[in-house]
Amino acid sequence: MSTITIVGAGMMGSAMSVPARANRHTVRIVGTPLDREIIEHARATGEHLTLKRRLPDEISYYQIEELDSALAGADLLVCGVSSFGLDWFIENIIPKIPESLPVLSVTKGMMNIGEGRLISYPEVFEASTKKKISFNAIGGPCTSYELADRDPTVVTFCGRDISTLRWIKSLFETDFYHISLSTDVRGVECAVALKNAYALGVCLAIGLSYRRQGREFEHYNSQAALFGQSVREMSRLLDLCGGRPDNIMLGAGDLYVTVFGGRTRKIGILLGSGLPFDEAMKKLAGITLESVVIARRTTTAVRELIAAGRAAESDFPLILHVDAIIRCGEPVNIPWRAFETETII
Amino acid sequence: MSTITIVGAGMMGSAMSVPARANRHTVRIVGTPLDREIIEHARATGEHLTLKRRLPDEISYYQIEELDSALAGADLLVCGVSSFGLDWFIENIIPKIPESLPVLSVTKGMMNIGEGRLISYPEVFEASTKKKISFNAIGGPCTSYELADRDPTVVTFCGRDISTLRWIKSLFETDFYHISLSTDVRGVECAVALKNAYALGVCLAIGLSYRRQGREFEHYNSQAALFGQSVREMSRLLDLCGGRPDNIMLGAGDLYVTVFGGRTRKIGILLGSGLPFDEAMKKLAGITLESVVIARRTTTAVRELIAAGRAAESDFPLILHVDAIIRCGEPVNIPWRAFETETII
Repeated sequence: MSTITIVGAGMMGSAMSVPARANRHTVRIVGTPLDREIIEHARATGEHLTLKRRLPDEISYYQIEELDSALAGADLLVCGVSSFGLDWFIENIIPKIPESLPVLSVTKGMMNIGEGRLISYPEVFEASTKKKISFNAIGGPCTSYELADRDPTVVTFCGRDISTLRWIKSLFETDFYHISLSTDVRGVECAVALKNAYALGVCLAIGLSYRRQGREFEHYNSQAALFGQSVREMSRLLDLCGGRPDNIMLGAGDLYVTVFGGRTRKIGILLGSGLPFDEAMKKLAGITLESVVIARRTTTAVRELIAAGRAAESDFPLILHVDAIIRCGEPVNIPWRAFETETII
Repeated sequence: MSTITIVGAGMMGSAMSVPARANRHTVRIVGTPLDREIIEHARATGEHLTLKRRLPDEISYYQIEELDSALAGADLLVCGVSSFGLDWFIENIIPKIPESLPVLSVTKGMMNIGEGRLISYPEVFEASTKKKISFNAIGGPCTSYELADRDPTVVTFCGRDISTLRWIKSLFETDFYHISLSTDVRGVECAVALKNAYALGVCLAIGLSYRRQGREFEHYNSQAALFGQSVREMSRLLDLCGGRPDNIMLGAGDLYVTVFGGRTRKIGILLGSGLPFDEAMKKLAGITLESVVIARRTTTAVRELIAAGRAAESDFPLILHVDAIIRCGEPVNIPWRAFETETII
């Protein structure tokens, strides 16, 4: 049995304790400074405050001041912070990680480093330190609630070294949590990086349909058209990032679960229903903030790619419209004609 | 204004009258021998019996004996038959089509012609006649109900000649029916050929979730995992058929709309809930028959591809499981482990 230390007691990080405990590993969960209540509550009751589920038995909980004890003797560190916590993790946790301790990150997304260059979060971690730490990450469809409920899913762990990946897989593989492996880190991360922004785009169609015909009519043609366009644009981004094209199946699966997964869906429907962005955000009282931030970060990169002449506006009509809605408060007006293509072989 | 004759008064063929009439073309709908009641009812009431909607005004309706008058002076023939009607269309209609009359087919699917060779329906039509008729077809997400309701969608017309395609597009393009064009006929048709079989596969997860936790729990992780696996297998088939890889966005969009579109969803959920195939079919009183036939026809081709050594069983674990359920009455037991891959770059 191994010892797995999860830093970040958010929903996804904490849910990783479920397959880990199913395999009887020792699990330690460390809260960030924002997770104090979650840790206190879990210690007192065994329940996770925001996941609203009982966590597996025999987990040890730590406040951030107890990080050193939580790291002592750990075999794997799971980075469970959200995109917001990325800088915090880099500044406060990475300096404390010994080179012998591999990291598996649940955080999805890419970082624009200017001039249209996009790098994955594992690459961001690598660039942040001189230490030779093995940074790995998870792509593919998996919501924390359903992982906690042991609903079957298939995810992909990516990293540079296949032996390390195989070992990490051996810690988490169960009959409900299935794991593919890939050393194409850029490809995996890039394929799923824009899923929040595109899920928001697909859900605009639901809101538009409600606006036109009432809530009982959830038409699917227009959602499917936006889903197909999303797959096209995600494939294009994958190509621009140099990822293998077959990673698009991860992007499609991750997009699917995000369309139905909750927070991003809510804001997409509100925007499609006719609410301006500011009002939609107020109505949701900030709960979608992360997905919007991820959308902004990645659309910024797409805009830079276009500015650098490495992509054309016509490659990304949907994401640019989502960006205009989020960034400039523009009204929803799906650019259907821009989705039409002509292919001559 | 042009004259468009639709042969086959089923839901999809008839729904094509909506964009055609929106552009003020003359529309004639000809029923097959199975459509007698639909034609009589539409003549008497202006409503479509199975689409359950009023069709546009000023459509002329014809019984099959009146085919010649319906063809006289037509500029485009829409083949509106289902997969069941394919042979009927080849034997009874193609011999009457002059070479000057282009055909646009709504029927999706591919035909296995033995030894693992797959050809698209337009190619089947071409092979059936010595005449040089322009056979074109429609791919991409579009349900008949929602087309009739003028919900926006984006489809792809495919055919060998781009000028003919552009002209056909000019007949149907409206602000709710958007049309991409492609001369990659094999690629377009192949990308969407297996969508019924895969939609059934994705919906198994919904039934499994109902069985485990009751109808209020429609978990999405497992649906998304099956959706991603479907995209992977559809991409593989596309590659085997020599279609361009970017057609996968059509397959993904078409799969999305089929998962939510009705009949295939129903049988997938029943099977996932634990009913054996025969009982599920009885419960639905035959309404899903077409999707099952398409699934059988295309999975037969996949089995032949494997037998011919052109593909491996491990390329198609999901569709082979769907096939075993449909063909052999096997119980649902998703082969999750078979979906796991290892990618080393």
